[in-house]
Amino acid sequence: MKDALKKLRETKPLVHHITNWVTIYDCANITRAFGGLPVMAHAVEECADMTKISSALVLNIGTLTSELIESMIISAKAANEKQIPVVLDIVGVGATQFRNQMAAKILDSAHVDIIKGNYSEIAKLAGENARTKGVEATSINADPFWLAKNLAISRSCTVVMTGKEDIVSDGSGIFSIKNGHSEMGSIVGTGCMAASIIGSFAALNDDFCDAAIDALSFFGVAGELAAAKSTGSGSFKMHLYDEVSGLTDEKAGPMINIESVDG
Amino acid sequence: MKDALKKLRETKPLVHHITNWVTIYDCANITRAFGGLPVMAHAVEECADMTKISSALVLNIGTLTSELIESMIISAKAANEKQIPVVLDIVGVGATQFRNQMAAKILDSAHVDIIKGNYSEIAKLAGENARTKGVEATSINADPFWLAKNLAISRSCTVVMTGKEDIVSDGSGIFSIKNGHSEMGSIVGTGCMAASIIGSFAALNDDFCDAAIDALSFFGVAGELAAAKSTGSGSFKMHLYDEVSGLTDEKAGPMINIESVDG
Amino acid sequence: MKDALKKLRETKPLVHHITNWVTIYDCANITRAFGGLPVMAHAVEECADMTKISSALVLNIGTLTSELIESMIISAKAANEKQIPVVLDIVGVGATQFRNQMAAKILDSAHVDIIKGNYSEIAKLAGENARTKGVEATSINADPFWLAKNLAISRSCTVVMTGKEDIVSDGSGIFSIKNGHSEMGSIVGTGCMAASIIGSFAALNDDFCDAAIDALSFFGVAGELAAAKSTGSGSFKMHLYDEVSGLTDEKAGPMINIESVDG
Repeated sequence: MKDALKKLRETKPLVHHITNWVTIYDCANITRAFGGLPVMAHAVEECADMTKISSALVLNIGTLTSELIESMIISAKAANEKQIPVVLDIVGVGATQFRNQMAAKILDSAHVDIIKGNYSEIAKLAGENARTKGVEATSINADPFWLAKNLAISRSCTVVMTGKEDIVSDGSGIFSIKNGHSEMGSIVGTGCMAASIIGSFAALNDDFCDAAIDALSFFGVAGELAAAKSTGSGSFKMHLYDEVSGLTDEKAGPMINIESVDG
Repeated sequence: MKDALKKLRETKPLVHHITNWVTIYDCANITRAFGGLPVMAHAVEECADMTKISSALVLNIGTLTSELIESMIISAKAANEKQIPVVLDIVGVGATQFRNQMAAKILDSAHVDIIKGNYSEIAKLAGENARTKGVEATSINADPFWLAKNLAISRSCTVVMTGKEDIVSDGSGIFSIKNGHSEMGSIVGTGCMAASIIGSFAALNDDFCDAAIDALSFFGVAGELAAAKSTGSGSFKMHLYDEVSGLTDEKAGPMINIESVDG
Repeated sequence: MKDALKKLRETKPLVHHITNWVTIYDCANITRAFGGLPVMAHAVEECADMTKISSALVLNIGTLTSELIESMIISAKAANEKQIPVVLDIVGVGATQFRNQMAAKILDSAHVDIIKGNYSEIAKLAGENARTKGVEATSINADPFWLAKNLAISRSCTVVMTGKEDIVSDGSGIFSIKNGHSEMGSIVGTGCMAASIIGSFAALNDDFCDAAIDALSFFGVAGELAAAKSTGSGSFKMHLYDEVSGLTDEKAGPMINIESVDG
């Protein structure tokens, strides 16, 4: 979307998260750095009310419990009713049966607009025989572009597969986002942060495929700029926030590297 | 209080928190940086025991659940009994009915010495027709000085309203703290951190209005010093901790900017 | 162990944590910075399954609840069955009865390979009349070397006592690790991070005493290097991660300062 970042910073959408306890601060803080207003509220008594005043809902099963899944489903239904986008980060699917089941339960209970995961998480969800090492991707056998597209078709949603090369598909187009830097894997939480950023851009853009591409390419550009200045994982994280907070559409534009893929 | 920061660093009071999962680390870490010893313990089985060995109690409803509220009330009653100060940060009041009700439940179950919130949270608690955007303040109709003073009178406590201009009132005096920097709003958690710092100073000073003024002005000065050195939200946060850990009463003194307000 | 850090970075063991909500991010992030793959999963329905695909289990009772303790015991039993090391950080033992009881419950329900705590936590667990100030050590009467050795013998495990001088004993040898820097106490979480690092090294080394010594000395060296570059607690934390991510066996070697103690 033209001037997507500028619009995000002007609109300041409220982005409701029900997320994990490991990266919850960075999910909130990166949402703020990009211009959105994060709110985290998981109590079953209020989660739907918070969703109803929000412009996007971001769900992340990183430290799931049965109670949190219940709140996620309540909020996802409220988001569907209000017609705001729902992002689901399927952290750790392929590592335990419980995660496989809970991700399926959310997807069967409400409509998710954007499913995000790493290569083995998405492969497992798509029915492949994939295993996830905790929350880390392992190599998969299937073609990732084919997987993303087919899952997008079968779930009528946009699929985001993150990894060395990020893939986005809405079931018709397939896009490869070649921005980002390996240093982003040196700190915990960049995957979760990506979901928050996707939710923030999707709050303003009905074309969720386009919103996800914007989110991943802007974040990737910031990662590249930060990596060039850092001397380890501590300074990388500091520079990552500095680069995000100083990013503009004009600055990022020439660095964005997206490819449309046949598949 | 004269030499307030020096005394805090010498006394190292234990500050018990029952707080939210987003900013819990920064609540603890800023308490430590100012010289206090943070402890976070929310289990219903032990929270009163932890309060009883502490010198202040800081409650924050940012990611409240019914269970957490129960623990907060148990601890607040233990704090009342032991006559140590109770700080309540009413995060998100005005956003959902549940938050409004739970904040009221705490306030009706135990005495809170210092109520802290942003402009719309305090306005809502004071009975105004205010709405909070998630955990972000929205504009209010009433005069904020009048609101702070009247809530302080009706609840027999000190009220802290944070925003572009921080306001503190104990029901007789009204003070405006003009320290701080807009960059403090570029990162998540500075509001929650302020409550932890207020609790730390209140642990040593029976004049809670004075303790809150000290906390906000010292923190604001550190924010100003950090903003002058930072190049984005990542480096701002790093410098903020550096400036807090290097702050002294002598260094902060000439920068402190407090105004007594008629109202 | 020779080339211990190199092996950790090559092997990338999965380190399962059930830990506290304050330092959970830093537990994960320091595990990653040292080369391991952290995973945090506490749901009773999946915690055993996650342990079964992991190479070490790290338990930390910093923000314990009855439910978390139940998950810790289930995972510890699964770890015993799979014969992977279990590390238990007894945060806050000596502060409340509940912590004393829950730590004892874990230790009586499953075998813990490495017990870690500060001086007063270990003293209390060993039956001394010690009190912990929240999660902070207080001075103890007993000889710390004697305490560590005797607790190691009585619990048939390795004991790690952290403080100004770190002590490790497996019941036969007693070692004093003289690396580290007082600045490590200026930020919250270095104690918890140490437990995560110990778990990471123990995943590769059946000699848990040796693994703990490696972990504490490498972390201490990184702390010394970081302190030399920092200008406060914010920059110290950034440099600490940078130094860990840039550390090698060769770089650390000449700085490591371990002493065998008679006792």
